[in-house]
Amino acid sequence: MPFNCGKLVIVGAGLIGGSLVKALKAAGSEIGEFTAVGRNLGVLDEAKNQGFIDSYSDDVAAAVRGADVVIIGTPVGAMRPLFERMYETLPCDCVVSDVGSVKASVVEMARTALKNKAGNFVPAHPISGTEHSGFNASFAELFQDRYTVITPLDENPPQAVARIKDMWLATGSHILEMSVDDHDRVLAATSHLPHVLVYALMNTIAGLPDADKYFQVVAGGFLDYTRIASSNAVMWRDVCLTNREPILKMIGEYRERLAQLEVMIANRDGQALFDQFARAKQVRDDLVDRRVREKTSGSTC
Amino acid sequence: MPFNCGKLVIVGAGLIGGSLVKALKAAGSEIGEFTAVGRNLGVLDEAKNQGFIDSYSDDVAAAVRGADVVIIGTPVGAMRPLFERMYETLPCDCVVSDVGSVKASVVEMARTALKNKAGNFVPAHPISGTEHSGFNASFAELFQDRYTVITPLDENPPQAVARIKDMWLATGSHILEMSVDDHDRVLAATSHLPHVLVYALMNTIAGLPDADKYFQVVAGGFLDYTRIASSNAVMWRDVCLTNREPILKMIGEYRERLAQLEVMIANRDGQALFDQFARAKQVRDDLVDRRVREKTSGSTC
Repeated sequence: MPFNCGKLVIVGAGLIGGSLVKALKAAGSEIGEFTAVGRNLGVLDEAKNQGFIDSYSDDVAAAVRGADVVIIGTPVGAMRPLFERMYETLPCDCVVSDVGSVKASVVEMARTALKNKAGNFVPAHPISGTEHSGFNASFAELFQDRYTVITPLDENPPQAVARIKDMWLATGSHILEMSVDDHDRVLAATSHLPHVLVYALMNTIAGLPDADKYFQVVAGGFLDYTRIASSNAVMWRDVCLTNREPILKMIGEYRERLAQLEVMIANRDGQALFDQFARAKQVRDDLVDRRVREKTSGSTC
Repeated sequence: MPFNCGKLVIVGAGLIGGSLVKALKAAGSEIGEFTAVGRNLGVLDEAKNQGFIDSYSDDVAAAVRGADVVIIGTPVGAMRPLFERMYETLPCDCVVSDVGSVKASVVEMARTALKNKAGNFVPAHPISGTEHSGFNASFAELFQDRYTVITPLDENPPQAVARIKDMWLATGSHILEMSVDDHDRVLAATSHLPHVLVYALMNTIAGLPDADKYFQVVAGGFLDYTRIASSNAVMWRDVCLTNREPILKMIGEYRERLAQLEVMIANRDGQALFDQFARAKQVRDDLVDRRVREKTSGSTC
């Protein structure tokens, strides 16, 4: 289903913003003017020449003039000044959304900076990505069969929420609605914590005196489970700074679990270790089964 | 290059043992008698009907009679009784090897149980696998372009070491030689620690009061980096019990790294977080580059 719209502005045409552009085009969306805002004008010029966008700019205030929908696709740390710069020129009925991995901080930024125009800010987060960055790493299928979490605010008009949902549905994504707080707690556990853990793992090994010997052996498996350590360091710094409390809480929970395993290993408690590992395996196997069923039945949208 | 051999016995025809059988057959190896030992005779009968093996048995003592090469493909915890049961009937010049993820413990078991026949025990560890188990999950390409670590013992005759190397080269694997202690330290860091970390992650989330809400959101990324939590719980219990000291040492190192990140997040130290994340990214990106170069140049074998 295509997403039709007057003027659509994507601010930050990196992996997510760029993939959104490509996915909406691939869906056959009719968009009056498709504009991208970014600092790398060479890349945006190429995107225009390739027919993905109609125009581009490095001036967000100018770009949002006359916009129907504005999507902020930058790392969370860059959002506050962008909201501030677009405030004056943003049409009152323009629907604004984002793609940030944290929501409470972004909502606070939007409410502060967009003031009386913040009611049309509908927070969203497509739960998809790769370890690569930039427009050239983007692709139309990135959101296919993934989830986009929408965390509507009390002040959002239903039609603004519907607009953002329709846009993400057009990319092939499923929609999950939850509260801002639930989003931040859930993502702290299932995304932010794993990133922190893998960054710590890479640096633990890299910090060993004969690290080269260790890395000589690593096979594909190691590269698989450390893939997320190749993600954008700025983005993940911003996530840790802006979703600080939920992440610290999860690190605390994790620390205790790890300490329990450590004690079981130290005590040579084979039965307890087996129970822990078998339980983890069961939980993950169930998740995989559920995803397979969902894909088959298409019931999650 | 095929691996030619008189009687070859694989004890434990699961994912690794089964893939070894299939890889050697796929390489066009001429094997006088290819025998598998296992408890699930139905599976082995099917393997025989499919032409992968010539014979099978659930009696390791009988199976190793007249063998030229015996490979133990079971979890490490099952190895000691197998060595004990095969001692009497094992030919004096038979080369014995294993596929265990730990080496010092297995060497100790082999030396104790195989006594005067232990000189031909050549420890080996193919660094490959999937999260699946059993002969039906095995496939001929599992070892292709992966590494097999051989940790020769002082008492090994060179021709016994060469035999095991030739066998793994026939599967498409590269060979890395290192000491038993280096193997156990290196694998504790690059394989055993990551498994422990991911088991702890799965159980941390599963243990939250509203775990279902958390798992509802997880996308492909989460399933990717928790893939190893679906590994065989018995095998990983055995690894933790038999490579206890190196694993505990690495958990200790890791705990400190994680605590440092925790403090940086608590202190809102964006610069320190960025430095840590960027460093981890650089290390992993370099590893990926190196693997791509190695694959292109074929220089690692």
